Amino acid sequence: MLFQVEMTVRLPADMPEAEAAAIKAREKAYSQDLQRQGIWRHLWRVAGSYRNVSIFDCRDNAHLHEVLTGLPLFPWMEIAVTALCRHPSSIHEDDR
Amino acid sequence: MLFQVEMTVRLPADMPEAEAAAIKAREKAYSQDLQRQGIWRHLWRVAGSYRNVSIFDCRDNAHLHEVLTGLPLFPWMEIAVTALCRHPSSIHEDDR
Amino acid sequence: MLFQVEMTVRLPADMPEAEAAAIKAREKAYSQDLQRQGIWRHLWRVAGSYRNVSIFDCRDNAHLHEVLTGLPLFPWMEIAVTALCRHPSSIHEDDR
Amino acid sequence: MLFQVEMTVRLPADMPEAEAAAIKAREKAYSQDLQRQGIWRHLWRVAGSYRNVSIFDCRDNAHLHEVLTGLPLFPWMEIAVTALCRHPSSIHEDDR
Amino acid sequence: MLFQVEMTVRLPADMPEAEAAAIKAREKAYSQDLQRQGIWRHLWRVAGSYRNVSIFDCRDNAHLHEVLTGLPLFPWMEIAVTALCRHPSSIHEDDR
Amino acid sequence: MLFQVEMTVRLPADMPEAEAAAIKAREKAYSQDLQRQGIWRHLWRVAGSYRNVSIFDCRDNAHLHEVLTGLPLFPWMEIAVTALCRHPSSIHEDDR
Amino acid sequence: MLFQVEMTVRLPADMPEAEAAAIKAREKAYSQDLQRQGIWRHLWRVAGSYRNVSIFDCRDNAHLHEVLTGLPLFPWMEIAVTALCRHPSSIHEDDR
Amino acid sequence: MLFQVEMTVRLPADMPEAEAAAIKAREKAYSQDLQRQGIWRHLWRVAGSYRNVSIFDCRDNAHLHEVLTGLPLFPWMEIAVTALCRHPSSIHEDDR
Amino acid sequence: MLFQVEMTVRLPADMPEAEAAAIKAREKAYSQDLQRQGIWRHLWRVAGSYRNVSIFDCRDNAHLHEVLTGLPLFPWMEIAVTALCRHPSSIHEDDR
Amino acid sequence: MLFQVEMTVRLPADMPEAEAAAIKAREKAYSQDLQRQGIWRHLWRVAGSYRNVSIFDCRDNAHLHEVLTGLPLFPWMEIAVTALCRHPSSIHEDDR
Repeated sequence: MLFQVEMTVRLPADMPEAEAAAIKAREKAYSQDLQRQGIWRHLWRVAGSYRNVSIFDCRDNAHLHEVLTGLPLFPWMEIAVTALCRHPSSIHEDDR
Repeated sequence: MLFQVEMTVRLPADMPEAEAAAIKAREKAYSQDLQRQGIWRHLWRVAGSYRNVSIFDCRDNAHLHEVLTGLPLFPWMEIAVTALCRHPSSIHEDDR
Repeated sequence: MLFQVEMTVRLPADMPEAEAAAIKAREKAYSQDLQRQGIWRHLWRVAGSYRNVSIFDCRDNAHLHEVLTGLPLFPWMEIAVTALCRHPSSIHEDDR
Repeated sequence: MLFQVEMTVRLPADMPEAEAAAIKAREKAYSQDLQRQGIWRHLWRVAGSYRNVSIFDCRDNAHLHEVLTGLPLFPWMEIAVTALCRHPSSIHEDDR
Repeated sequence: MLFQVEMTVRLPADMPEAEAAAIKAREKAYSQDLQRQGIWRHLWRVAGSYRNVSIFDCRDNAHLHEVLTGLPLFPWMEIAVTALCRHPSSIHEDDR
Repeated sequence: MLFQVEMTVRLPADMPEAEAAAIKAREKAYSQDLQRQGIWRHLWRVAGSYRNVSIFDCRDNAHLHEVLTGLPLFPWMEIAVTALCRHPSSIHEDDR
Repeated sequence: MLFQVEMTVRLPADMPEAEAAAIKAREKAYSQDLQRQGIWRHLWRVAGSYRNVSIFDCRDNAHLHEVLTGLPLFPWMEIAVTALCRHPSSIHEDDR
Repeated sequence: MLFQVEMTVRLPADMPEAEAAAIKAREKAYSQDLQRQGIWRHLWRVAGSYRNVSIFDCRDNAHLHEVLTGLPLFPWMEIAVTALCRHPSSIHEDDR
Repeated sequence: MLFQVEMTVRLPADMPEAEAAAIKAREKAYSQDLQRQGIWRHLWRVAGSYRNVSIFDCRDNAHLHEVLTGLPLFPWMEIAVTALCRHPSSIHEDDR
Repeated sequence: MLFQVEMTVRLPADMPEAEAAAIKAREKAYSQDLQRQGIWRHLWRVAGSYRNVSIFDCRDNAHLHEVLTGLPLFPWMEIAVTALCRHPSSIHEDDR
């Protein structure tokens, strides 16, 4: 089941660089693991912002919640979730 | 080059059904043609609304404009465009 | 899987009363059928408005979409969907 | 008398973990006590956010205010209240 | 139990004057009857707008809904409801 | 001359309790003094929030400004003012 | 007593030109009469819009309401009122 | 050339009083100097807020920018600018 | 003196095609004439919308107002004006 | 390919002046280098604000992202991007 998720990151400008780098490294590893599992199906950067547009493929709402709240950057994120479903005009088999 | 596009359709409730059906049929054909060409890369329905979330792969901004204004439903749509680019954490080759 | 849905109805003030009554009667029958099936789990009126707050229990996003777009009043509704999941502090077994 | 309440929690990212854990533990106990009394009738997590959607059954507005301002997390919450009443199409006896 | 209610009236500019006058006359009678009963406790005009600020004293949310949806101008109104309760610093016995 | 005033208080969560208590005590005394003079005609708490809805009876705009900026909590308040006047349907002599 | 008032005019694009011209002529006469009386103290056009920014000098809120609702264009206007008072740094005697 | 400018001041509540008083004194002197030169043509306080509504008469946009960014309170202000011009119905010679 | 202007066009979907075409033709001629005079310095289409972003070089606010209200499409436009001035980091002589 | 970009800078009011000056100097150098390369085609100051309106000419969305996130002031900026394309009525060859 697919969800569009927009994540905007607001790290405080005075966070020590090493701390920020460590969190971002954990975020990257976490994200790539979920991508390999097919849960985080798409991940794009919004041009000009510290924001991404993502498509998640989760078993249900609870699964999505578990995945998103596990993000190392979650405490500094503003997150918007949109429930998606198959569009009748889509010809792509995996645009479920 | 990728763009996220959100289209919300607002057909007047009193449009004759046959007219609406004809426009939607042309919209579907137009959309599927662009999907087959790889220009309209993803198309999802937003659950509960007459709205979609789409990903377009266009040569440039002008190409995107030409494609969107050519939509048979364009006169009744509200459209929001977000320019995307590759995310450094993405592992998907085609999430350009 | 649960969703909170807010529906605001905007019937044009000049719709003939008989037409409005007929649509509302079909809406009521449709709604009560879904309530009996356990799909439309809760339905409340927002005090002072032609708006409701509802909780739906659907198999997935596609099921929710099918149910909502089937509403006889759908063409005159503004709908907002929020994906819900179980709260760790809930003691109610069916607040899934 | 029913009210829908949406609570969004914004704990500062730099609050000591032990302090946050202590407040959350008190919040959980407070919430479950009210659920057992039938005052906090429903409690759901909004998927992807530190936010909940709740239904309260209170004697009156003053009772609701007393209950909400007593929340251990109240100082860090943004709260939106919607007064509800029975919907004429509802078939659930307890969707008062 | 008290509620603050803001009502904004949007009569179409092309409604025949006689029709508008008839609806407003019924609105006035309806409003004054509720004022005499003590249900519509305060009624003020917002300076410069076709809008009012009102305080209602109702038995419960359902009573408020019944009173507001019975307004002859209801189909042309936008209504915002705020549940009120006694303020600990109030010295007015009837600011319940 | 009447004004509706909405005051939302945002005390920082880390303000020492004694300091907050002292400010609130002065606020209460200030408010009750104005109520006794008939200037602060109504004062209600918004259920579920640290916000009030008030009606002030002032000589003019300057008087209102003097009264509001004198509030001990003024530096932590967000204030919205609405100028009111008598409603032609009001039957209450003092809803001026 | 001074008020800043912003008026935005939204005449329907299909109003017959003669009708629009007649209303605007009455509006102009009404406005200039109030300017001569010193009630409509300032009147500026917002560059690029069918909107004005005005300063009114009225006896009280009721006077302002009477003046604004008497505008021939009132039914097609959106109006925002801001109550003003003398600024402690002003050196202009008539910026009351 | 006239501009309407709205300035909202947000001094941090914990700024030392002496520091705030010094900035405000410089602001007052700066403002009165510009008023004497005829550049800051009107200055009103918005009743109930730390906000003003002003009319500036500047040579051009650059002049306005220079004047506003020179305000001692500029770093703590939110500023909204509206370009004005003469209204065809104005009878005041200096409402340019 | 430069201004950024954003124009959004909302022609009614049921305007006869010939009428729309005639207005657009007049709009194009009007726009190109102003471009040739150097008044309408830049004109870009917003990708995916019937909206443009423009830069005007006018003598003053009144000139800008005259130019914009003369647009054949003005009655169907929503217009936002931003006063610009030279940026201290600009190296372009004509980015006045 | 052109983009309109609006950048609003929010430096904390308590940032040491030397630090702010150093960042701004690097920003200026960075900006002028991009202007010389023809990438940052226009740069204007919004009158009365610490905000600019800019036009960028980039190879694609990724190029724009690289350029914007490299801004020394990026961590304190709010950025809005609008994809532009040639307007059919434009007569300027370089308003691509």
